Amino acid sequence: MSFQNPVFIPGPTNMPEALRKACDMATIDHRSPVFGKILHPCLEGVRQVLKSDSARMFIFPSTGTGGWETALSNTLSRGDTVLAARNGMFSHRWIDMCQRHGLTVQVVETPWGQGIPADQYEDILRADTTHQIKVVLATHNETATGVKSDIAAVRRALDAAGHPALLFVDGVSSIGSMDFRFDEWGVDVAVTGSQKGFMLPAGLAIVGFSEKAIAAAKDANLSRTFFDINDMQAGYNANAFPYTPPVGLMNGLKLSLEMLLEEGLENVFARHTRIAEGVRAAVDAWGLDLCAATPDLYSDSVSAIRTPDGFNATDIVTHAADTYGVAFGVGLGEVAGKVFRIGHLGSLTDVMMLSGLATAEMCMVDLGLNIRLGSGVAAAQEHYRANGIAAQRYAA
Amino acid sequence: MSFQNPVFIPGPTNMPEALRKACDMATIDHRSPVFGKILHPCLEGVRQVLKSDSARMFIFPSTGTGGWETALSNTLSRGDTVLAARNGMFSHRWIDMCQRHGLTVQVVETPWGQGIPADQYEDILRADTTHQIKVVLATHNETATGVKSDIAAVRRALDAAGHPALLFVDGVSSIGSMDFRFDEWGVDVAVTGSQKGFMLPAGLAIVGFSEKAIAAAKDANLSRTFFDINDMQAGYNANAFPYTPPVGLMNGLKLSLEMLLEEGLENVFARHTRIAEGVRAAVDAWGLDLCAATPDLYSDSVSAIRTPDGFNATDIVTHAADTYGVAFGVGLGEVAGKVFRIGHLGSLTDVMMLSGLATAEMCMVDLGLNIRLGSGVAAAQEHYRANGIAAQRYAA
Amino acid sequence: MSFQNPVFIPGPTNMPEALRKACDMATIDHRSPVFGKILHPCLEGVRQVLKSDSARMFIFPSTGTGGWETALSNTLSRGDTVLAARNGMFSHRWIDMCQRHGLTVQVVETPWGQGIPADQYEDILRADTTHQIKVVLATHNETATGVKSDIAAVRRALDAAGHPALLFVDGVSSIGSMDFRFDEWGVDVAVTGSQKGFMLPAGLAIVGFSEKAIAAAKDANLSRTFFDINDMQAGYNANAFPYTPPVGLMNGLKLSLEMLLEEGLENVFARHTRIAEGVRAAVDAWGLDLCAATPDLYSDSVSAIRTPDGFNATDIVTHAADTYGVAFGVGLGEVAGKVFRIGHLGSLTDVMMLSGLATAEMCMVDLGLNIRLGSGVAAAQEHYRANGIAAQRYAA
Amino acid sequence: MSFQNPVFIPGPTNMPEALRKACDMATIDHRSPVFGKILHPCLEGVRQVLKSDSARMFIFPSTGTGGWETALSNTLSRGDTVLAARNGMFSHRWIDMCQRHGLTVQVVETPWGQGIPADQYEDILRADTTHQIKVVLATHNETATGVKSDIAAVRRALDAAGHPALLFVDGVSSIGSMDFRFDEWGVDVAVTGSQKGFMLPAGLAIVGFSEKAIAAAKDANLSRTFFDINDMQAGYNANAFPYTPPVGLMNGLKLSLEMLLEEGLENVFARHTRIAEGVRAAVDAWGLDLCAATPDLYSDSVSAIRTPDGFNATDIVTHAADTYGVAFGVGLGEVAGKVFRIGHLGSLTDVMMLSGLATAEMCMVDLGLNIRLGSGVAAAQEHYRANGIAAQRYAA
Repeated sequence: MSFQNPVFIPGPTNMPEALRKACDMATIDHRSPVFGKILHPCLEGVRQVLKSDSARMFIFPSTGTGGWETALSNTLSRGDTVLAARNGMFSHRWIDMCQRHGLTVQVVETPWGQGIPADQYEDILRADTTHQIKVVLATHNETATGVKSDIAAVRRALDAAGHPALLFVDGVSSIGSMDFRFDEWGVDVAVTGSQKGFMLPAGLAIVGFSEKAIAAAKDANLSRTFFDINDMQAGYNANAFPYTPPVGLMNGLKLSLEMLLEEGLENVFARHTRIAEGVRAAVDAWGLDLCAATPDLYSDSVSAIRTPDGFNATDIVTHAADTYGVAFGVGLGEVAGKVFRIGHLGSLTDVMMLSGLATAEMCMVDLGLNIRLGSGVAAAQEHYRANGIAAQRYAA
Repeated sequence: MSFQNPVFIPGPTNMPEALRKACDMATIDHRSPVFGKILHPCLEGVRQVLKSDSARMFIFPSTGTGGWETALSNTLSRGDTVLAARNGMFSHRWIDMCQRHGLTVQVVETPWGQGIPADQYEDILRADTTHQIKVVLATHNETATGVKSDIAAVRRALDAAGHPALLFVDGVSSIGSMDFRFDEWGVDVAVTGSQKGFMLPAGLAIVGFSEKAIAAAKDANLSRTFFDINDMQAGYNANAFPYTPPVGLMNGLKLSLEMLLEEGLENVFARHTRIAEGVRAAVDAWGLDLCAATPDLYSDSVSAIRTPDGFNATDIVTHAADTYGVAFGVGLGEVAGKVFRIGHLGSLTDVMMLSGLATAEMCMVDLGLNIRLGSGVAAAQEHYRANGIAAQRYAA
Repeated sequence: MSFQNPVFIPGPTNMPEALRKACDMATIDHRSPVFGKILHPCLEGVRQVLKSDSARMFIFPSTGTGGWETALSNTLSRGDTVLAARNGMFSHRWIDMCQRHGLTVQVVETPWGQGIPADQYEDILRADTTHQIKVVLATHNETATGVKSDIAAVRRALDAAGHPALLFVDGVSSIGSMDFRFDEWGVDVAVTGSQKGFMLPAGLAIVGFSEKAIAAAKDANLSRTFFDINDMQAGYNANAFPYTPPVGLMNGLKLSLEMLLEEGLENVFARHTRIAEGVRAAVDAWGLDLCAATPDLYSDSVSAIRTPDGFNATDIVTHAADTYGVAFGVGLGEVAGKVFRIGHLGSLTDVMMLSGLATAEMCMVDLGLNIRLGSGVAAAQEHYRANGIAAQRYAA
Repeated sequence: MSFQNPVFIPGPTNMPEALRKACDMATIDHRSPVFGKILHPCLEGVRQVLKSDSARMFIFPSTGTGGWETALSNTLSRGDTVLAARNGMFSHRWIDMCQRHGLTVQVVETPWGQGIPADQYEDILRADTTHQIKVVLATHNETATGVKSDIAAVRRALDAAGHPALLFVDGVSSIGSMDFRFDEWGVDVAVTGSQKGFMLPAGLAIVGFSEKAIAAAKDANLSRTFFDINDMQAGYNANAFPYTPPVGLMNGLKLSLEMLLEEGLENVFARHTRIAEGVRAAVDAWGLDLCAATPDLYSDSVSAIRTPDGFNATDIVTHAADTYGVAFGVGLGEVAGKVFRIGHLGSLTDVMMLSGLATAEMCMVDLGLNIRLGSGVAAAQEHYRANGIAAQRYAA
């Protein structure tokens, strides 16, 4: 393991120094007004990143998984039904959480590599004439497969079916890196974390609630205290948390938001697209396929790359770590051993990405794959040259 | 607010630089073996700080409140009964959490300033011949009142009553600063956090389970996923977390444990006692009383100091922050306005403490209290001189 | 030694976190335009701190001693005569440097504890009708004795004598902490360093030259390359240094200057005066005397405190370090063992200062001096209360 | 300019995080024993890196240029003669310094791209039968041309001529990265800095003196105070400096030395060779030539790459900075515009180097050179694969 090379895992990402320094903060009194000056810009900023005018934002000292639990436990009661597609490890885990919380999940089994089948959702919702389905779950970006689903299409399915279910979206590996439109898509709960698009250490669950989702909390009987949004809101109203807040990490989030919004969200997304397209050009040059079945599904934050049959893709990850000190992501669940993943989100430059691609090439050649050294790098270089913008931002 | 002065709140504490630097860590692959080398020493180290040979330790990206919820949700079912004393804000909040999770709480109302009445516990447990009470809660150190309760006595009450209930102890503001004996006291679940005795930022719930408590998880039907100890244990068995771990913060915990254990727990406790006694000498010299009713109840991590009737103790805290850039703790709940609190735990020297006492004196005089400048400082100096050990540890 | 307590040496000072973080900078290309954006604000800012409109500023990777050598070697030739008063260790060392560089020094021996005798300077200058004296040296603030000299009076002496000698001032422990008026006082070379009023690590010599001093460089035959101001100026003209610049330290200086100028120089000086007066009130309460003979000589950056005859003042410094983890300054040269020094410059609050005074008291009592614990602290508290401004600045 | 990408200038180098954290040190009393525990391991460690048993080491708060001045001013008198070869900008500058200090320099003009002509040195030394030549200068690694000279051959020339002159070696860009043998080569003064092989910020001149060189100080009449080795030695003998030492930077040096010596010097050198050979393989694949004329001259710390006639090599450097946020070195002096330089010393991995090569390729193609994208990267990958050792060291 080298601490000098960038990481290419799909989060936590490489961190800008300025964010690390903002997180590394001396102790302050979290009950003093100083904390309010960190808290409120965080809440306002994450709302802007969600492209929402009115979402109520909550930040918990937790992770994306805690964000999922926040979404469920504040809005649902035991025995309630939710609709969900399983097309990767993370959608699988959210479904599992539902079941363990006593919810009934209508699962749409979907090939890993495909997106959410909005048409199937629509059929199911139309058929649910008694509105047993209280919530529709949607994983915006399946981190396990590098598949981006069409949330607008899910919203259209709900609308077409005239169904009142809430729409909950897991945007953990999309928000802050890829376009997300809370208001336009009619999202009711959006969940993300600190360690992806926000380029921070893990430790924050960031959750946005629509008014409709907030209202659902009144009747929800799933037990919760730590993740209770009403306690949290009462805390915020007093410039505080209901318990000790992770002040330094939130101070980092405040700066992250300033950086993202100053760069401009569309510029941030375009940067992710450009870097991702370079990776995809390299994959193509290597003669390999992405796990994502079609270009409309390609994720701009992570690429899951299929390796030839009979080859254990996980060996690439192990070899890269052991021999070159570089971290890639392994395949998970159904695609374990079949794909390796390159994370390309957060704080990353074209130049850093090229070193990741060069490393992947060396590993594949070392392990006997029929890849020409330099081939993927050249394809990505060509893309970065043609599409390169001037030097990356994120000063110390 | 000044970032130069120490804080004197009862947590988060002042942080040693070495710990801040350990927390400020570049991103690593949390699925790589590097993480295991952080995780396991943390688990082993916190067990040692609990003085346990066999407790199963769990670390969540959360806070002490999440630790409480971990304790309850992994061991209890809706409708179960717990026994608890309410003698301050933090015991009150734990009771509230129980009720919101659908538990029945038999509350022993106890004057704020008193410790847990072990004899009343014993009477109640003896009377519970059908063993409806599944869990006995005990707040080791009431942070709101500066009262330390006798956990060994609670254990004796359970044993004397021959009652099989589990013993859950909130050690958030005691563990790492004051003696805690998980095994000797027969504790079943102990809860703490990163931001007190471990001198780290907030962000970790640290929870120890006895085998008996682990066994209770089988039948517990309270819903949980994020805080599920079995998921967590399965993760640990694979050198991982069930979700993204807060690597940097755990790297800080690893170093914190090395520092505490190298200093020696008894030395750490003695250091806290010495500093606390200096504070108490100052309080006495000021002619004021502690909230804690008797010396056996005095906490070595926080002192809640009663101010004269008609005086708003919170003004001291506000004035100290506004005028001198120093943070003390306000009174909470029943003792709001009646006490102000001086935290004296974690990374603190005699010399730093004297600056806190000097500040408190200036504030009290500024606000019209009949205190002689220098009087409390002199009493503490006398104590620190007589009891002073050589210069404090915790190098950068 | 403790890394937790503030230091009370007369520099290097305690450092604001923001400055440490600014110094801790990733490597940049020092030949790129990025460096120019650090360099020029530094040069402009230090000029403002000198209260000069036209001084040419030079920053060397060196220390104040290197600044002295810069002053001499760029303006003088072997055999030239300089006039200097010796009233402490630092004026002594500058004289010694002159002699070792082949200069003739007319030394005005002055009791340690007294300031520069401007009237004697005037007499000597009047007598020097052939203008053999090329330079008059003046130590603005004798760090060894805590004595501030009147530079305006030295200028008046030069003017009264109608003497063309250059006026060189050592402002190492005054500039940035105490009022300094390069233009108004007709200073020709002023010397300081990074580690005092600028609150940074040691490592920079900062030197201002008047046009007259610059002109003297033409004929000066003392050898120099590293400290050559013409090489340095040529570098600056190309946004560079003639060798590798200490980029991080200069990045810290840039921020330090922003902080000082934003606070306002007069506010900075007033803050130093207030803290110093608290120390002097404590010294008076202890029944001790300052080394500085009269109040007009009292330094606002360091106090040298005389201890009773027969007592070794150095023991206080050793004892404070060994027992309480606090650093004070020893007496140097003629006053070694007779004084100990409390530095009170740079990044310091009233509250921090009180902890230093409390420590000094404990040490003196421990070592048998007839001092009442709390007495000096109370005197300082009274001063800080009466003169306290709202909470100190210098956020992280 | 990007702060995310590595730099590829020939120093200052990329810095390991652990070193940055060691440099970023709270203020300590530099007159306390704590400083001695930093100072002496530094002196001992740099001596080991020089492969000397007996060299007296001196560390000044300065740069390599100050190290050159230390060498000259402590050993020579006005009018003394030195012998030097001029084969690049840095040897030129040292010669210039000699002349400005009143020394007579017998210059052996040598084509830039060639090493020191030891045979010519021998002829000159043999001819100097009256031993007018007091010192022979040798630039071990000409940073401007990427040329390594054979110091052992220079020593043989001196010995063959039976000449008593001292041998002074500039090892600024070699020591710590390339093999250096102070004792074996009979070096009398070796000069380096903190910002190259030691992977630290600029700010330290590090100089080793043989006993013979120390002895020469007795009669040397060049003026010096700041750089006086006797003052410095007297300071060291008291665990101190003659002025304020740069404590944090030295604390970083202490750790740097521990890291280098733990890795093993031969491993460090082999690492530099491996990375350099990858760069040279890329240059060859591009069809370009190094400035260094023959393989025996190739530097392992920096490569100066000739671009085709009519092409301005500096454009590559400007374009890399502006478009890709990557820093390379420009050509200096005689080779300005004719070469660009890739620094490959200090804290660097194969993977980082590949990103530098990929960037250079993009720049050359962008600017119209006939280079195939990926070609140099592939050549380097092939080399790093074949010669790769397991993941790089230098953990946080």
